[in-house]
Amino acid sequence: RVNGDRLWDSLMEMARIGPGVAGGNNRQTVTDEDAAGRALFQSWCEAAGCTMGLDQMGNMFARREGSDPDALPVYVGSHLDTQPTGGKYDGVLGVLGGLEIIRTLNDLGIRTRHPIVVTNWTNEEGTRFAPAMLASGVFAGVHTQDWAYDREDAEGLKFGDELARIGWRGDEEVGARRMRAFFELHIEQGPILEAEGKDIGVVTHGQGLSWTQVTITGKDSHTGSTPMPMRRNAGLGMARVLEKVDEIALSHAPHAVGAAGHVDVYPNSRNVIPGRVVFTVDFRSPDLAVIEDMEARLRSEGQKIAGDMGLTIAFEKVGGFDPVQFDDGCVAAVRGAAERLGYSHRDIISGAGHDACWINRVAPTAMVMCPCVDGLSHNEAEEISKDWAAAGADVLFHAVVETAEI
Amino acid sequence: RVNGDRLWDSLMEMARIGPGVAGGNNRQTVTDEDAAGRALFQSWCEAAGCTMGLDQMGNMFARREGSDPDALPVYVGSHLDTQPTGGKYDGVLGVLGGLEIIRTLNDLGIRTRHPIVVTNWTNEEGTRFAPAMLASGVFAGVHTQDWAYDREDAEGLKFGDELARIGWRGDEEVGARRMRAFFELHIEQGPILEAEGKDIGVVTHGQGLSWTQVTITGKDSHTGSTPMPMRRNAGLGMARVLEKVDEIALSHAPHAVGAAGHVDVYPNSRNVIPGRVVFTVDFRSPDLAVIEDMEARLRSEGQKIAGDMGLTIAFEKVGGFDPVQFDDGCVAAVRGAAERLGYSHRDIISGAGHDACWINRVAPTAMVMCPCVDGLSHNEAEEISKDWAAAGADVLFHAVVETAEI
Ligand SMILES: NC(=O)NCCC(=O)O
Ligand SMILES: NC(=O)NCCC(=O)O
Repeated sequence: RVNGDRLWDSLMEMARIGPGVAGGNNRQTVTDEDAAGRALFQSWCEAAGCTMGLDQMGNMFARREGSDPDALPVYVGSHLDTQPTGGKYDGVLGVLGGLEIIRTLNDLGIRTRHPIVVTNWTNEEGTRFAPAMLASGVFAGVHTQDWAYDREDAEGLKFGDELARIGWRGDEEVGARRMRAFFELHIEQGPILEAEGKDIGVVTHGQGLSWTQVTITGKDSHTGSTPMPMRRNAGLGMARVLEKVDEIALSHAPHAVGAAGHVDVYPNSRNVIPGRVVFTVDFRSPDLAVIEDMEARLRSEGQKIAGDMGLTIAFEKVGGFDPVQFDDGCVAAVRGAAERLGYSHRDIISGAGHDACWINRVAPTAMVMCPCVDGLSHNEAEEISKDWAAAGADVLFHAVVETAEI
Repeated sequence: RVNGDRLWDSLMEMARIGPGVAGGNNRQTVTDEDAAGRALFQSWCEAAGCTMGLDQMGNMFARREGSDPDALPVYVGSHLDTQPTGGKYDGVLGVLGGLEIIRTLNDLGIRTRHPIVVTNWTNEEGTRFAPAMLASGVFAGVHTQDWAYDREDAEGLKFGDELARIGWRGDEEVGARRMRAFFELHIEQGPILEAEGKDIGVVTHGQGLSWTQVTITGKDSHTGSTPMPMRRNAGLGMARVLEKVDEIALSHAPHAVGAAGHVDVYPNSRNVIPGRVVFTVDFRSPDLAVIEDMEARLRSEGQKIAGDMGLTIAFEKVGGFDPVQFDDGCVAAVRGAAERLGYSHRDIISGAGHDACWINRVAPTAMVMCPCVDGLSHNEAEEISKDWAAAGADVLFHAVVETAEI
């Protein structure tokens, strides 16, 4: 068993870096706070006897040697970056849970045959630079590194420049590593495990995602002196499209979700009818055909709404991945570990995207989930119990060590 | 007749300060650009022999002496601040049209009995600091100065502090001046005069305005892993309220307008269901009862929409004025001037708010309007012709000089 107190203390210490405004965190990717969090993680890894690798996307790889110099490493990890108003566990539990495996192996004086590498993937959240899971995506060959470097934040700063600025752009070629397996521990971010009183979710699939950035263009004009029939109100067009997004997702209930989290209105002045709005529609489903149907309907219904209002509308796909099926062997290792340890468990589909979804393309991969209070995540009030964290890390420990062989 | 070329040259020179991104201006109130515009205006006024007064709200008063030391001055003016993506004429024409009166009187060697004072009112636009017409409102006793100083911009900077920072907070008590009359020349900002081929609008009334800031609160949560029935999506609530705003305004067509120009979504991250949205609804009508009905329906229907969705909603009135009827004598002076000069004209109701709407409470007031291309304003593409500007300034000149007596 891992040391649950030590894991919890590390979670709380990391949460002091980039504090939020309501008890959570704002440690967004490639900010100064991210750099501080990375430095703390590195110091812990070195204290645990690991060597640190750093690739050109800023992905961190803390390696504990195995007994067989030719054996492929088992990778474990998640991400340390957070949402702007994020919780203390989303991603962090998976990285520090990996570190806890190393510490526990050290306590027990166990050397595995295969090396174990704890990974912190850069920019999982995708808030500052879309898309999410950017660096694991480059690692898995889904995006080119040049394209990733060119991603811009709302201020027009580029990802590659910011990564260099904070001092965490390494030299190692991205994606060159080969993995025996990859395991990721993560909080569920949904309500199922807590509602059913399960300790562990054995993640068999991840639902797919589609992010479409929608730009509606009308004409800026005066809110007082422009007669109603002359208006080309891009804000009203957005309102109608947002209603349609909800309707489209609900038409596939319970196998789909849809919403827009990002909305920018221009020029955003009380007495100017919006001439332009930009917003991002997030559709998800475990079924690729459903995602494709939702995307197509967004485009056709959006076109119709805009056309009827004298507006123009443009769509750009800014993120997406197909539904994922994790590796049978790795999934069985997770399920077997939960079983052996006596934790209640169930198979589950991940509602969120994870680095594991991309790494699954280049290595046998699975995920362990633990419950979170009220299913709440991407909120500073995100909460878990120490016991839940410890149970998740225990299962991760057994699945990883079994795969790394003693 | 005024010198139309000189007026136009001054308009173009002022437009070089705080240029926009598309041919218009971004010279928002109490910014460094506003300070530069004020300095240019002051230099022109002093070159024309005026003395400059400055009150504690930053209102500028360029005075040309009259022949009778006891006679009350005739005031004329408008505002030099612009929208963030504003035009070159909205407000500026009224200030520089006033200056052109002084220059023309100098050319003609005419001294009026009453002094003439050309005024630049601070923060007419209300974008950076709501409400609009802030400083003329304090002058007219509608707001207290302390309240005005406390208005905050989106960064939390206070109006009073920013006014001092740019060096244009004067010593003079606000509202102490008494006026024989106030005249304001402004572009129509609507389509009527151009469509009917009229040179001049004789403004008899101004429609009233109501700005209600609406805050809808739901719960931030993950766009992927939060099941649809558990969502409390404040962004979707906003969409429904925006549709309702349009429906309410149209129910009073053609005697009302309604829209929201300002929308902020929090935390504004692609994968976070908005937990909070703040937006401002702008309703206007020449009929006070219609405004009151629209406000009441926004509150009751908004309450219902939010309640049905498990959201909370709060309303704050952040700006407003009742419909205005301008002074019969001043209106007659404008109409008579247009008639005498042979300009085609019609009576018109102002769709926008103007400093004249507040000054009308403390002095006999009227407005002159000239057409603008396609009725477009609050847009960098706002345009007028040199002839339209000259005609408006001619009528202003005659109305002011008649009132100031030769
Ligand atoms: N786990 C998580 O919140 N990932 C961010 C990417 C997503 O939106 O699913
Ligand atoms: N004239 C003008 O655009 N004033 C701004 C205040 C308003 O929104 O009417």
